[in-house]
Amino acid sequence: MMACVTSVAAAGRSDPRARPIGVFDSGVGGLTVLHELLVALPHEDFLYLGDTGRFPYGERSAQELTRFAVEIAEELLRRRVKLLVVACNSATAAALPALARRMMQTTLGVDVLGVVRPEALRAVAATRTGRIGLLATPTTVASGAYEEAVRTVDPHVTLHPVACPTLAPIIQAGGQFDARAVATVREACAPLRDARVDTVILGCTHYPLIQPMLQRMLGPAVTLVSSGAALARQVEHALSTRALSNPRTGDGELGEGEYRFLCTGDVEAFRELGTRFLQMPLGEVERVQLAAAEAIA
Amino acid sequence: MMACVTSVAAAGRSDPRARPIGVFDSGVGGLTVLHELLVALPHEDFLYLGDTGRFPYGERSAQELTRFAVEIAEELLRRRVKLLVVACNSATAAALPALARRMMQTTLGVDVLGVVRPEALRAVAATRTGRIGLLATPTTVASGAYEEAVRTVDPHVTLHPVACPTLAPIIQAGGQFDARAVATVREACAPLRDARVDTVILGCTHYPLIQPMLQRMLGPAVTLVSSGAALARQVEHALSTRALSNPRTGDGELGEGEYRFLCTGDVEAFRELGTRFLQMPLGEVERVQLAAAEAIA
Repeated sequence: MMACVTSVAAAGRSDPRARPIGVFDSGVGGLTVLHELLVALPHEDFLYLGDTGRFPYGERSAQELTRFAVEIAEELLRRRVKLLVVACNSATAAALPALARRMMQTTLGVDVLGVVRPEALRAVAATRTGRIGLLATPTTVASGAYEEAVRTVDPHVTLHPVACPTLAPIIQAGGQFDARAVATVREACAPLRDARVDTVILGCTHYPLIQPMLQRMLGPAVTLVSSGAALARQVEHALSTRALSNPRTGDGELGEGEYRFLCTGDVEAFRELGTRFLQMPLGEVERVQLAAAEAIA
Repeated sequence: MMACVTSVAAAGRSDPRARPIGVFDSGVGGLTVLHELLVALPHEDFLYLGDTGRFPYGERSAQELTRFAVEIAEELLRRRVKLLVVACNSATAAALPALARRMMQTTLGVDVLGVVRPEALRAVAATRTGRIGLLATPTTVASGAYEEAVRTVDPHVTLHPVACPTLAPIIQAGGQFDARAVATVREACAPLRDARVDTVILGCTHYPLIQPMLQRMLGPAVTLVSSGAALARQVEHALSTRALSNPRTGDGELGEGEYRFLCTGDVEAFRELGTRFLQMPLGEVERVQLAAAEAIA
């Protein structure tokens, strides 16, 4: 756990502004999103839950993912988070609308933000040619969530999706990239180069870890849009709209918040893999047992 | 080695534009500079030499560093590089002027670029308050090279240097950051926060590896300037001024260049540590024996 170093006294937990932001994912991938949030919003506290006990989410049904998401959300709400971030593309694509409805019904109106819409918005803002590429897992590509999100913002933009079945496992497996990894990344980039896209959405939370390789293969003129960077502004906006920003920011002095971790699987495995994904010290990890949620329509 | 995938036939080595760019450092630190060059100039070939057999440079005299730099430069020139990049702050601060003079005397006028001036230029361009921070090794801070470079561009800017004796070794030692590492980074950032700088020069090639932690501790409004990003534009400019850009860029199609490695120490140690610093696959590493240079005035 990071020590809280601030010249402004942190408000008590009874002040809703002083509560942490809840972030969850199927495992460690969402830590690349948390990473961006920690850099962009250093004065906020964060509570991250990795559902490593049920990883991966990629092959599960939308109904099942919705049930998981509700179980996790209720655990985080019991721990008094002020905002929920779904830092997982599969869970966002499958469960966000149902989860958001449920949260509005059962709680005091906690906002739920997912990773798809902020990325789509940012990609449409970035493109000059109207040709946007998407790299994502087969499940996420098949859901059509990004196509819908892009079309809602600008129907004249063309999305070129590339489904990458092996890329996330390769990234999760290792720090040393071998010839197979390079070939896989090159293969994923080829159709995007052919399509002459000028913006590429990284539609999986694992992909920011190979951003340099992607940037090199796609060329320096291509804008890469990742979940974390796109989401950070939306989180900031959601908090300030509801007057929920942490008062540590009060007088312009920078206070530094805390971040903590929960996981449903092995704690040591989470810590070891997690440091590489977070690119920061990890600290304490607590194992948590989730309560079963009722069936959701 | 990366395979060269390009639709434009690469010109032969007799064409000076097709020659590689030579980059050198005392060890693996300069790979964070090469990393930025590989991303910014994907169509160029690179030849990197890490003088790991004589690492570290930090405690050596300026005269000794100049001799080392000339030995390395002559080896790279024998391998027909078209431009020399000194990707090491200590070597740049100690040896750049003498090295540049020597190169002009003994060769067909190969340009030599170092890491200090491009960073100083970029930092002065970025600051709005005129208060710039510098994180560097004690040797680099003591050399006064950054102060001089900043003053030359804008005498009204104030530089706040912080000498960090243990930061580079801590970064080189490990992927897992412990409490000591966090405390060291926090201690280095404290005087810069007190001085309310709005721009910070990362004056050591190791520091980009902890950029997220630095950005979080200094706050999102502070601009971090690193050697690699600052240098990439200067390299591009130097090449285009002398009409030496690789013709792979010719028709707007993106060709991807090769990159190769030489080191004076243990090849396996270089490969293992190097991958973390390069953040890309490393491939072939060749051990090289340097010829002794004559004494330099």
